[in-house]
Amino acid sequence: MDNLLYGGIELGGTKTLCSVGYGDDKIIAREELPTTNPTETIERLANFFKGYPALGALGVGSFGPVDINPQSSRYGYITTTPKAGWANTDVLSLLAATLNIPIKLDTDVNCAALGEYYFGAARNKKDFVYLTIGTGIGGAAMVNGRLLRGQMHPEMGHIRIPHNIDQDQFKGSCPYHNDCFEGLASGTAIAKRAAQKAENVIDPIQWDLEANYLALGISNLISIFSPELVVVGGGVSMHGGLVEEVSFRVGLLLNSYVSTPLIVSASVDNALLGAIKLAA
Amino acid sequence: MDNLLYGGIELGGTKTLCSVGYGDDKIIAREELPTTNPTETIERLANFFKGYPALGALGVGSFGPVDINPQSSRYGYITTTPKAGWANTDVLSLLAATLNIPIKLDTDVNCAALGEYYFGAARNKKDFVYLTIGTGIGGAAMVNGRLLRGQMHPEMGHIRIPHNIDQDQFKGSCPYHNDCFEGLASGTAIAKRAAQKAENVIDPIQWDLEANYLALGISNLISIFSPELVVVGGGVSMHGGLVEEVSFRVGLLLNSYVSTPLIVSASVDNALLGAIKLAA
Repeated sequence: MDNLLYGGIELGGTKTLCSVGYGDDKIIAREELPTTNPTETIERLANFFKGYPALGALGVGSFGPVDINPQSSRYGYITTTPKAGWANTDVLSLLAATLNIPIKLDTDVNCAALGEYYFGAARNKKDFVYLTIGTGIGGAAMVNGRLLRGQMHPEMGHIRIPHNIDQDQFKGSCPYHNDCFEGLASGTAIAKRAAQKAENVIDPIQWDLEANYLALGISNLISIFSPELVVVGGGVSMHGGLVEEVSFRVGLLLNSYVSTPLIVSASVDNALLGAIKLAA
Repeated sequence: MDNLLYGGIELGGTKTLCSVGYGDDKIIAREELPTTNPTETIERLANFFKGYPALGALGVGSFGPVDINPQSSRYGYITTTPKAGWANTDVLSLLAATLNIPIKLDTDVNCAALGEYYFGAARNKKDFVYLTIGTGIGGAAMVNGRLLRGQMHPEMGHIRIPHNIDQDQFKGSCPYHNDCFEGLASGTAIAKRAAQKAENVIDPIQWDLEANYLALGISNLISIFSPELVVVGGGVSMHGGLVEEVSFRVGLLLNSYVSTPLIVSASVDNALLGAIKLAA
C-alpha cells in the first residue's frame, strides 16, 4: 500500500461504473453512468476522474470481446461486440486521449475475478471460475493462480449447450450463435423469451428453464476446469434462490463423476475493486 | 540431458504402452500390452521394465479419473472410471510395490499435451488445448505455459453439448451422463450407435454426426480457452479427413465471433514422450 489513489472503471454493456480507491477492499468514491455511445460515455467518466487529479493509474474492466494483449496491434479495441456503436472501437486510445494517466485494461470478468481473488469468496484460491449472468454471459478462470487469457480472452458465454426445444421454442438471443449459452440464459434472452424486462419475470416456468441452462453451462465449466470454487455474479444471478437451485442441479448433472465444488454468489463491487487493484 | 534412461507408461483404457528414452524426442524401446485387470497389467509392464534396471525414474500417464494431487490422501488412485476392475484402484502403490524407482503420475492427456509442448505441433505454445478421441474423450489445456490441473484434473469429455436428436436417436454411451460429449462422440459411442467396431464404420451419415459433435465440443473449448492451437489425437481422430472437416465446421459454429485457431492432428507417441519427459 503506497497511499496513492487509483481509479477503477467497470465498462459494462448497460452501465459504466467509475471509482477510486487505494487498492484495498474499500471504494472511496464512485459514480454510475449509462453506457451510451463511446464518445459521450468517455466524456462523462472523464468528468468524474477530473475530481481526482492525483491518481497513480487507472484500471479498466471492459465488456468484450476486447483486445487485452499489449503485444497486439489492436490492443485496447473492443472488437466484434453486438452492442451498437462499440464494435471496432479503440477504447484505450479514447481513454488515454482524455485522461492523462497510465491505464491498464482487462475484461470486466477478469477484473471481477481479481476482485474475488483478493477480497471475495475466492480469496487465495488458485483455481476457480467466475461467471457473470447479466445483459450477456461472461466468464473468467483463475488457473494455477493466474488469470486465463489465452490468445484473446475467454468467451465462455458463447459455448453451445443442449437447448431444451420441447419446452423452449425461443430461438435464442445471440446475434452470432442464436442459442448459445448467452443466447439462452442471459438477461437479454430471459427478457426476449418472456417479452418483458428480465427483472419483472416471475413465471416459475421461465426460471426453471433459466436454472436448467445455467446448470448446464456451469457443469461444463466444472468438467473443464476442475475448479475449487465457482463464483456467480451479474444481475440475473441475484434472482432469489437461483444460485442455490443451480448448484443443486449441477450436482445432478455431474452425477458424482467429478465432485461438485462450492457455487457461491459474487461479492458486491468485485469488478471495481479488481479494476482498482489492476491499476495499483 | 543427463544420459540417464527414463521409463514412460501410457496406461490406456484398452491398451498400455511401456517405453524407455532419454527425455528427448526419441523412444529407445517400447512394448504394447492389453489393459486387462490391474494386477495382471502391472505384472506385465513390470516385466518390460526389468530389462532396464538402471532407470532414473518412471513417468505414468493414466486414463482417468485419477487423483494426481500429491497432497491428496487418494493420490495415485484411479477413482470413478467406468472401466471394469479399475475403479478405486491405487495404481501408484501397485506400481511402486512392483518397480523400485521414483514414479511421477499424471493423466494420459496431460502427458500427451506435454509431448506436444516439447516435441510436437504445440512446441513452446503457452496456450493450447489437447483433445483425444478414442475409447473415451479426454482433454488437457496448457494455460500461461502450465498444465491446467485444478482440484482434480479436467474431464473435458463429460461436457454437455447439443444432441442432434432428430437425426440421432442414440441415447449416448456414457454410464454417468448418457449423451455428454464422450457419450455421443467417443469411439465407444460410434461403435454402439452403429452396432459395429468404430474402425469398421464407413456410413457417411455416422461420420457426419461425429464431425458435428466434435465441432461442437471443440468450438466450446475454443470459446473457453481462447487457445493458440488445438491438437486432436486418439484413434477416432485418424479417420480420413475428419480433423479437416471438424476444423471447417468449428469455423461455421464460431461464426467469426472469435477467431478459429489452427486445429491439427496429434503427433505419434506424444503421450509416451510426455511421460518420459515427466519422469526426466
